[in-house]
Amino acid sequence: MRAVEFRNHRLSFVGDAPEPDPADGEVIVDVLKAGICETDLQIVKGYMGFQGILGHEFVGVARSGRLAGRRVTGEINCPCGQCSTCRAGRPRHCPERTVLGIQNRNGAFADRLALPESCLHAVPDSIPDAFAVFTEPVAAACRILEQRLVDSSDSVLILGAGRLGSLCAQVLQPECSRLRVVGRHPAKLRVLADCGIETIDLAAFTPRAVDDVVIDCTGSADGLKLAMQCVRPCGTLVLKTTVAAEQNVWMSRAVIDEIRIVGSRCGPFEPALQRIADGHLQLAPLISATYDIEQVAAAFQKSAERGVLKVQLNIGTTG
Amino acid sequence: MRAVEFRNHRLSFVGDAPEPDPADGEVIVDVLKAGICETDLQIVKGYMGFQGILGHEFVGVARSGRLAGRRVTGEINCPCGQCSTCRAGRPRHCPERTVLGIQNRNGAFADRLALPESCLHAVPDSIPDAFAVFTEPVAAACRILEQRLVDSSDSVLILGAGRLGSLCAQVLQPECSRLRVVGRHPAKLRVLADCGIETIDLAAFTPRAVDDVVIDCTGSADGLKLAMQCVRPCGTLVLKTTVAAEQNVWMSRAVIDEIRIVGSRCGPFEPALQRIADGHLQLAPLISATYDIEQVAAAFQKSAERGVLKVQLNIGTTG
Repeated sequence: MRAVEFRNHRLSFVGDAPEPDPADGEVIVDVLKAGICETDLQIVKGYMGFQGILGHEFVGVARSGRLAGRRVTGEINCPCGQCSTCRAGRPRHCPERTVLGIQNRNGAFADRLALPESCLHAVPDSIPDAFAVFTEPVAAACRILEQRLVDSSDSVLILGAGRLGSLCAQVLQPECSRLRVVGRHPAKLRVLADCGIETIDLAAFTPRAVDDVVIDCTGSADGLKLAMQCVRPCGTLVLKTTVAAEQNVWMSRAVIDEIRIVGSRCGPFEPALQRIADGHLQLAPLISATYDIEQVAAAFQKSAERGVLKVQLNIGTTG
Repeated sequence: MRAVEFRNHRLSFVGDAPEPDPADGEVIVDVLKAGICETDLQIVKGYMGFQGILGHEFVGVARSGRLAGRRVTGEINCPCGQCSTCRAGRPRHCPERTVLGIQNRNGAFADRLALPESCLHAVPDSIPDAFAVFTEPVAAACRILEQRLVDSSDSVLILGAGRLGSLCAQVLQPECSRLRVVGRHPAKLRVLADCGIETIDLAAFTPRAVDDVVIDCTGSADGLKLAMQCVRPCGTLVLKTTVAAEQNVWMSRAVIDEIRIVGSRCGPFEPALQRIADGHLQLAPLISATYDIEQVAAAFQKSAERGVLKVQLNIGTTG
């Protein structure tokens, strides 16, 4: 089958990748469309040390199981289900987990992938393929609500108007009293402004420690330092950025001002699918470009360009 | 009056310091005894940029007000009471606050100090002076409970068996299911072992990400890195260490494992006084040495020595 592999520090399209070999309880999915995420760009830079087929944002058609023949998307963490972490109700943190296209499991930039049936979610008919691909990052935005990090009376500041920052802003805006997004690229800020979200150009932004909740979606090692300057005493700093580099930060500010810093990663799929089906999220303006899977090199190059939001890969077609 | 001043990067005893000039609502306290804290040692290294009379752990006798003639200790944060932070119920974080011996307010290493009457707490008769001096650091330990960062089913790991680590361990032990303290100095660990607390020699300690709550009381810039290796996914890392230096840390671990990092500083005095009065805390073994205020240079030197816990200064006498 066709697939996009990252091996020996090289990203490449291959026409003859081995078919997935599903374990017990796993289902083969024919992939229709997939999205390129910041994590994919980081992996290509060496982050996570992953080798194999990339990709974890997708929509496809299940071949078997209770969702056979239906369009599905899938949770990317595949837990063992047995260990104390799984039994404690934190399967996304199972130390034995594999992660689709990120850790010990081939991903979605391929004609077919295998996932445990329990990871799959049916995509409502009203959601087009191009929007269904957003389920995973919208779920990551919903995770902030699942963690109860934002209160309805909170003033929220999001740093970064990129792929994830934009989705976090759209998901959180109805849930808090004030929301602002600081970004660098006029085109990305315009998308948010068109959603009725208050935006600030980074060049004109003076950090002040006033916001109840600050969310670092910069995708940059410098984001944490800026976020620490913006959160009020006893406020909450939500970390969404994963970077390979260490960050240098004056943590004593967190002690003196009793700041709460909380990491936030993958989230719940059902509330994400519901939000997408509701039609309240503006997803079309987030799609900067779509490439066929064979053009993956150009797609990755595009995805890393300034001002570019989501780049998607066309992989299969229904019927 | 006699006082210990830190000015122009120099710590010195002076015999003719000006008397405190109490503002409206402030009370003069005749200081009996005071304690040297890690923060005092950090200030002497240049941390906080404070200049003036040092010291914030004390017991004394109030000269006026509702506690006139009684032994008192005092909260160190003096809020404005007017600003939005004060009105929001976070007076310890008032941006206009002065802090006894730390920020824009002369401290307790002196014959007399001035504090707002609202900051003073009566010391029960059953508490000797030498134990009353521990109220402020015991309150800092109680702050972790006030912040609800520890659950009764939690396994807690404290890094650092020094002054604050030891008090945190003693305060938290009855409140969690398992508590261990990692330390470097046999004498400090012995104090905790004598309290029935499980101790681990740092040299024999292999960090594993298993504890529900990890508390950094190392007082060292390296503590955070070690703490990050010890907290389990979705666990809580409590920061008690304030150091002048920036810390270099791979924060992506906090994202991937959704760790909660919470700064914790000053705490409530009444629960602290109650715990000291209860007699459950072993405070006598924490007092390594006592000096007269004139010998402050030797006292600071002693306090910075390896293996030394609390060093106290005798300042006044009752009656």
